[in-house]
Amino acid sequence: IAKQHHNELTKKLDAMHPADIAYILEALPPDDRLLVWDLVRAERDGEILLEVSDAVRESLIDAMEPKELVAAVEQLDADELADLAPDLPTEVMQDVFSSLDHEEREQLRAAMSYPEDSVGALMDFDMVTVREDVTLEVVLRYLRRFDELPDHTDQIFVVDRDDKLRGALSLNTLLVNDVEVEVASVMQDHQLVLHADDSAESAAQAFERYDLVSAPVIDHHDQLIGRLTVNEVMDFIREQSEEELLAQAGLREEEDIFAPIMDSVKNRWAWLAINLVTAFFASRVIGAFEGSIEKLVALAALMPIVAGIGGNSGNQTITMIVRAIALGQIQPEAARRLYRKEMGVALINGIVWGGLLGLLACWLYDSWALGMVMTGAMTLNLLLAAFVGVSVPMLMARYGRDPAVGSSVLITAVTDSGGFFIFLGLATLFLL
Amino acid sequence: IAKQHHNELTKKLDAMHPADIAYILEALPPDDRLLVWDLVRAERDGEILLEVSDAVRESLIDAMEPKELVAAVEQLDADELADLAPDLPTEVMQDVFSSLDHEEREQLRAAMSYPEDSVGALMDFDMVTVREDVTLEVVLRYLRRFDELPDHTDQIFVVDRDDKLRGALSLNTLLVNDVEVEVASVMQDHQLVLHADDSAESAAQAFERYDLVSAPVIDHHDQLIGRLTVNEVMDFIREQSEEELLAQAGLREEEDIFAPIMDSVKNRWAWLAINLVTAFFASRVIGAFEGSIEKLVALAALMPIVAGIGGNSGNQTITMIVRAIALGQIQPEAARRLYRKEMGVALINGIVWGGLLGLLACWLYDSWALGMVMTGAMTLNLLLAAFVGVSVPMLMARYGRDPAVGSSVLITAVTDSGGFFIFLGLATLFLL
Repeated sequence: IAKQHHNELTKKLDAMHPADIAYILEALPPDDRLLVWDLVRAERDGEILLEVSDAVRESLIDAMEPKELVAAVEQLDADELADLAPDLPTEVMQDVFSSLDHEEREQLRAAMSYPEDSVGALMDFDMVTVREDVTLEVVLRYLRRFDELPDHTDQIFVVDRDDKLRGALSLNTLLVNDVEVEVASVMQDHQLVLHADDSAESAAQAFERYDLVSAPVIDHHDQLIGRLTVNEVMDFIREQSEEELLAQAGLREEEDIFAPIMDSVKNRWAWLAINLVTAFFASRVIGAFEGSIEKLVALAALMPIVAGIGGNSGNQTITMIVRAIALGQIQPEAARRLYRKEMGVALINGIVWGGLLGLLACWLYDSWALGMVMTGAMTLNLLLAAFVGVSVPMLMARYGRDPAVGSSVLITAVTDSGGFFIFLGLATLFLL
Repeated sequence: IAKQHHNELTKKLDAMHPADIAYILEALPPDDRLLVWDLVRAERDGEILLEVSDAVRESLIDAMEPKELVAAVEQLDADELADLAPDLPTEVMQDVFSSLDHEEREQLRAAMSYPEDSVGALMDFDMVTVREDVTLEVVLRYLRRFDELPDHTDQIFVVDRDDKLRGALSLNTLLVNDVEVEVASVMQDHQLVLHADDSAESAAQAFERYDLVSAPVIDHHDQLIGRLTVNEVMDFIREQSEEELLAQAGLREEEDIFAPIMDSVKNRWAWLAINLVTAFFASRVIGAFEGSIEKLVALAALMPIVAGIGGNSGNQTITMIVRAIALGQIQPEAARRLYRKEMGVALINGIVWGGLLGLLACWLYDSWALGMVMTGAMTLNLLLAAFVGVSVPMLMARYGRDPAVGSSVLITAVTDSGGFFIFLGLATLFLL
């Protein structure tokens, strides 16, 4: 009975899109996952490995024999192989490499030579090119010789004898124009051209801004070497925003939700360690004021409010600035304006919320002075948060660092320690 | 001299892509922004309004006369008009509406009737359809009568007399096949079809999963009414991930970085108010233990560490679970497994980091008992964080709420108050 069940499942899997199989594999716990993986036809393994997340891919590759792996990935194009290469055992890659023909080998070498977040790493090599001195009629006849055009072919590229890019002929243009005209007279020659070592980020922005489906990629000699397509760009955008969300929560990388406990611990450790250090530092700031707290224990209860609200407000500022920097909306000249605005917001929030909390503190502990210290400390800490919230990402951007990384940890550290120091300091000065 | 300068600028703007002009407008402070906006040719205003962010769009629309606005948006397609409609003054929309022909009016009405995050709200109406009983030759001749095909036409749709969708003919198929064959024999009839009231989110997932450039959209009578294209999907994905990032920091919506201070205050207020409430509650938890703190003031310095690390760890768990739910990786059966795993991670972190901090506390305050309480409290608070970090998003998902909204506030509230309660409670029990 188990066998019949297996046969049915195999049939179902055969009929499914590789991306759907990948989706199912992601959702299965490890044992079931490997069971289903075994039922997938071997020649489809390669395309499915491309679709699954890094964490799940690792678990599948670990379960495969080197021979199986070689068979699976041999089916792939050079650019796809390059994506998988970092996860494959060296001996598998060597076997695959020696099975490729000269052109594919060169392509694989090229694709692997580009850094991870460059256009070169995302492009594919599969495209149609024509010469500019032929008629559309000739182009149409040429295309009819293909079994099928490469995916996402919305334009074919026009090159000269040296493979230098001369322009592009969109299928749109090809289809609406008279077949007698020459390519040269209808091709687009002012279109967006990417360089293989352009950053993927800037390419993605161009795709979004100009609503592209594909774009030609050239090398240093202006020779056409590949093509970037919108599906790769969309994957890149999704991955990037995922990474940002994970990084904000202090996860080093995406996690297979069924990963062994120790893998998860490692994935989350760096962040906890950093937070431990900053929390310990904040704790020592409080420690310095133990005498004051002993005399007025209400301070202990009120101080986390000052620190917490400061942290939240600072994170709002920093998120907004980081995003604006990423979108290129902030020019250096704008800095003063931003400081003024953020400090203004902080001042209003400090007076309103700080005032409210001051009243509460005053009512709870029956002390006007304590209320005033509370309001003052909240306002100052919010101003500190605003100042640091603008400065940190602006400085990081100026020194060429990614302002999204670590900004949030830094601001929380400042507003915690700063908040405790300001509140306990003011209290020591004015209340004791 | 200013005039000459203006003329030059006008020429430059004329030569620019609307998306590039939008980009420049975003980066300019309000006064300069309106100056440049005045120089843009009036007939381009509409397409630029479509490209700018909501916040900037508002500022531009506010600066325009109703007559200018009508002239600007009349140029747009029905689906684009529908995107702008919520931001336009009612009298402008009425004028525009009465200037449309019957078909456009119906399209506009349809587009505006779909909820914001549905396929219907993102689709466009511009597409090419053919009948299945004609040859490719006829199709090619038909296409040649167009001045240009709609953007992102990678396939043309095959419909019957009643506009019911029969299949699709990709340009790829059209170009590689013999011109003599009939559409019916080469068209794809098992392709992805969207319903106008499908969620945009699920459509976006389908586009990513199957690498689509366009997909047909049908209504309840299976009639083809429009088409969703990859550029709309990409914009949707980008907006969604932006919103998620902003929401995590407690920003209600994207902010024009040059917005007036009061606008920013309002945008950030809701979140600060919620945090104030949770912080105040945590403060009252501490207040309940004031007697203990008075006797052992070291507690005041150590308690924020317990609360802080719990919050960080809980946010890691919740981010991972929310993401896995969004990707559909979590089945209800998996819950027990996840609890076990997350509690395991928490236990290890608690013993290791809690142990380390216990040693530090013991060394600082020269009290083994205090160190043990510290370790115990950290471990318990991490376990609490793990439990709540799994439960909250799972429960929210079960009751059909978006688990990404508010999860982070909730977990921080729990780990703060919980952390203070556990630590001060243990200390009161064992140390005093």
